Amino acid sequence: MSTKTDLATYFTGKIAESRILKDPDSLAFYGKDWLARYTPNASLVLLPESEEEVSEIIKTCAANNLAVVPSGGRTGLSGGATAQNGEIILSLERMRKILDINPLDRTIRCQAGTTLEALQNAAQDNGLFFPVDFSSRGSAQIGGAIATNAGGIRVIKYGSFRESVRGLRAVLGTGEVVSINGSLVKNNSGYDLKNLLIGSEGTLGIITEATLTLTSPPNDTARILCGLESVSAVTELLAYCHKTTLDISAFEYMEALPYQEVLKHRGLKNPLSSTFSAYALIECEVTHSAQREEIQQVFLQAFEQQLIVDVVVSESSAQAEELMNLRDLISETLSQRHTLHKNDIAVPIPAIPAFIQDLHALLQKRYPDFQVALFGHVGDGNIHVNVLKPQNLSDELFRAQCHEADHDIFSLIQQHKGTISAEHGIGLLKADFLSYTRSAAEIALMRGIKKLFDPQAILNPGKVLKAV
Amino acid sequence: MSTKTDLATYFTGKIAESRILKDPDSLAFYGKDWLARYTPNASLVLLPESEEEVSEIIKTCAANNLAVVPSGGRTGLSGGATAQNGEIILSLERMRKILDINPLDRTIRCQAGTTLEALQNAAQDNGLFFPVDFSSRGSAQIGGAIATNAGGIRVIKYGSFRESVRGLRAVLGTGEVVSINGSLVKNNSGYDLKNLLIGSEGTLGIITEATLTLTSPPNDTARILCGLESVSAVTELLAYCHKTTLDISAFEYMEALPYQEVLKHRGLKNPLSSTFSAYALIECEVTHSAQREEIQQVFLQAFEQQLIVDVVVSESSAQAEELMNLRDLISETLSQRHTLHKNDIAVPIPAIPAFIQDLHALLQKRYPDFQVALFGHVGDGNIHVNVLKPQNLSDELFRAQCHEADHDIFSLIQQHKGTISAEHGIGLLKADFLSYTRSAAEIALMRGIKKLFDPQAILNPGKVLKAV
Repeated sequence: MSTKTDLATYFTGKIAESRILKDPDSLAFYGKDWLARYTPNASLVLLPESEEEVSEIIKTCAANNLAVVPSGGRTGLSGGATAQNGEIILSLERMRKILDINPLDRTIRCQAGTTLEALQNAAQDNGLFFPVDFSSRGSAQIGGAIATNAGGIRVIKYGSFRESVRGLRAVLGTGEVVSINGSLVKNNSGYDLKNLLIGSEGTLGIITEATLTLTSPPNDTARILCGLESVSAVTELLAYCHKTTLDISAFEYMEALPYQEVLKHRGLKNPLSSTFSAYALIECEVTHSAQREEIQQVFLQAFEQQLIVDVVVSESSAQAEELMNLRDLISETLSQRHTLHKNDIAVPIPAIPAFIQDLHALLQKRYPDFQVALFGHVGDGNIHVNVLKPQNLSDELFRAQCHEADHDIFSLIQQHKGTISAEHGIGLLKADFLSYTRSAAEIALMRGIKKLFDPQAILNPGKVLKAV
Repeated sequence: MSTKTDLATYFTGKIAESRILKDPDSLAFYGKDWLARYTPNASLVLLPESEEEVSEIIKTCAANNLAVVPSGGRTGLSGGATAQNGEIILSLERMRKILDINPLDRTIRCQAGTTLEALQNAAQDNGLFFPVDFSSRGSAQIGGAIATNAGGIRVIKYGSFRESVRGLRAVLGTGEVVSINGSLVKNNSGYDLKNLLIGSEGTLGIITEATLTLTSPPNDTARILCGLESVSAVTELLAYCHKTTLDISAFEYMEALPYQEVLKHRGLKNPLSSTFSAYALIECEVTHSAQREEIQQVFLQAFEQQLIVDVVVSESSAQAEELMNLRDLISETLSQRHTLHKNDIAVPIPAIPAFIQDLHALLQKRYPDFQVALFGHVGDGNIHVNVLKPQNLSDELFRAQCHEADHDIFSLIQQHKGTISAEHGIGLLKADFLSYTRSAAEIALMRGIKKLFDPQAILNPGKVLKAV
């Protein structure tokens, strides 16, 4: 207890006392992310209101070797925002101003604590559109979304957060402030430090502000649900669609199990005539009426060519939403009904059918009782792997077996030249496994870079790069 | 002379003798890039045929502290591929295999010495399209284009080279080989080393191979030439076009002077009814016939709203090519007719009119005899500034005055939050001026990164970061 009081004194005069939290509820609340796997154990929560305060706090932490966990909406699923070793939590939630919207430049500049939803709404109020979207939009903050390079369903057309960041400001591990690239579209003057900070999960710097690119809102969108015979047919359908002039903004995959779970437990009616072993849900942007006719033509032909067995094309925005729900509700439904072990992985698109086949074979052989639910952004090669705990297995045993299985899964991913984290990041959860995806030479460079940006190793220690 | 012979002996057994060049013609030919400002002074030219050979050569160079200039098509305009201090030139031109084209993944994998044109043709032969394009396509090599993050006219829709690189392989300054990201679309596992190598101008590693993203070829393109009253009208027209559903793939700006020079010296007829102080040349992709009608509507309305004074819309591919020639031929025409001092800069798009006005005022005041030709990719905020040498001024005096003027121009760019290099890179030419665009903190991080990737400082010394 005395330690906690002592720590707070370091920050006297640097930040108002009312914005230094040390009560157990706050420490527990701010100490964990949506993964909720690690027991929170934070020392303090600080709520700065300006970049200057962030900088002063970090200077103090660097001078006194105090570890800091930068904290956004804590919607991450890799333990990247967990404080479990007595760290100080620096929450950006009070820094949520939208500073500027420029319609000529089509940019929005905001503080790091702005939620994704607030940003999307501000863009919309100005006749513009921020296309990156995911279901935690109401809580996820821009600083965290940039720090984790968050993705979502529209990456196939608009990219991840990385592709939307024009410029950013950040406080390094020394307390020094860097402002990188402003609002420039093109800037070939020296090394790309912006992309180094993006996706660094708070280990290289604390993002305080960003300028993001906006686009024009789509006129209309159509959604198409297809029933298919196998996952191979899904990648064939993707290749087929790429050859058309469809303006694809999402290309999602669902196996039978998660699809059925959503139908059953949400009391929804199957929009298709039957059940299938694989489903594709496609979103297309529609600007001209000719594109609606084209969609009908494209999927009629896909049917005639036996690429798909059944299809529904949305005819209203209500129906389009119903179709997207079948995909959107999977994660929530599975979480509510099962104890899950999740992996978010990617392989090159051509490797998807073989990888999925190998993955099922591997788990079937080692853990015949495990049910596995696969779904995800197949248009980007990104598959969410959810292993469901059998009812008669204890939590402990399930976790231990999954831990073993992870090694096999990661080896399989390596064989298929994939990655152990497509969009959720490494955080604490996968720091021990980084070498499945990155070579020793790459990890050595990362460690060197970490030392340059954060010489005292106070920023989010143990995340991404495990302690050595 | 003996030095050159001695140096060659380091590489005996590492590379066939026939691929070690030391004749004066080769040293002069490989020793400079298209800027042709620096006097070449190379020691040797090495022509490796494999990544292993590149790695062995670099290991030898690192062990013996021999400086290396990585060399592609040498079409750069910043002296980035110049060898002027007795360096060894490592040309990738023998490594030009296209290794794989994957239509499902829509990727192409090739060696670094492949020319942009060969890559574009290979994509086309497979019904696909590589969208990044610039006029040096026949000579520019993929390794160099990635190392300089080359741009061109279609950045507004497709981005620069950076946005097309899925993965790459490179040899670091230690000789170590890194393979980064393969062909993955999504990979959030640790720091982004790929984007660090892209645009590092051969100072962090030698790119040996890349996997690039291909797209579907556009069905058709239309080009629209507009005559405008001022540069302010150009940015207003850009904002107006962004609000429509036009699928804009280029948005170019030309002042009266370069436009007239092209008409006059190429014997071309002005497609517009008169001459104007500003011109915009716009390229739109056309997928549906409704889009052709929309183009007519959009520019008719722009005319009615007095955003533009005159307009021609291409009605055939021949006419579309004629219109693009008016922009494409500027650089070549000016170079043939004048001694030029070039700057390739960018400012935020909203700052363009004020910046251009300030720039003209600055040059008019200090150097009333100088004529200035501005043109460029205004849709990306990127302006090419060409100062024309007055006939009665000596080359030496012109260069000295331009050198002085550069400081003022760069200060002005800094005031407008722009960059001293939008797409040409820093190279040797602008290494002394980097601090106009990047802060001391950023430059310190860059120097640290340079040391990690190239501890002996043998890769392209003096480029990007000046020697200290």
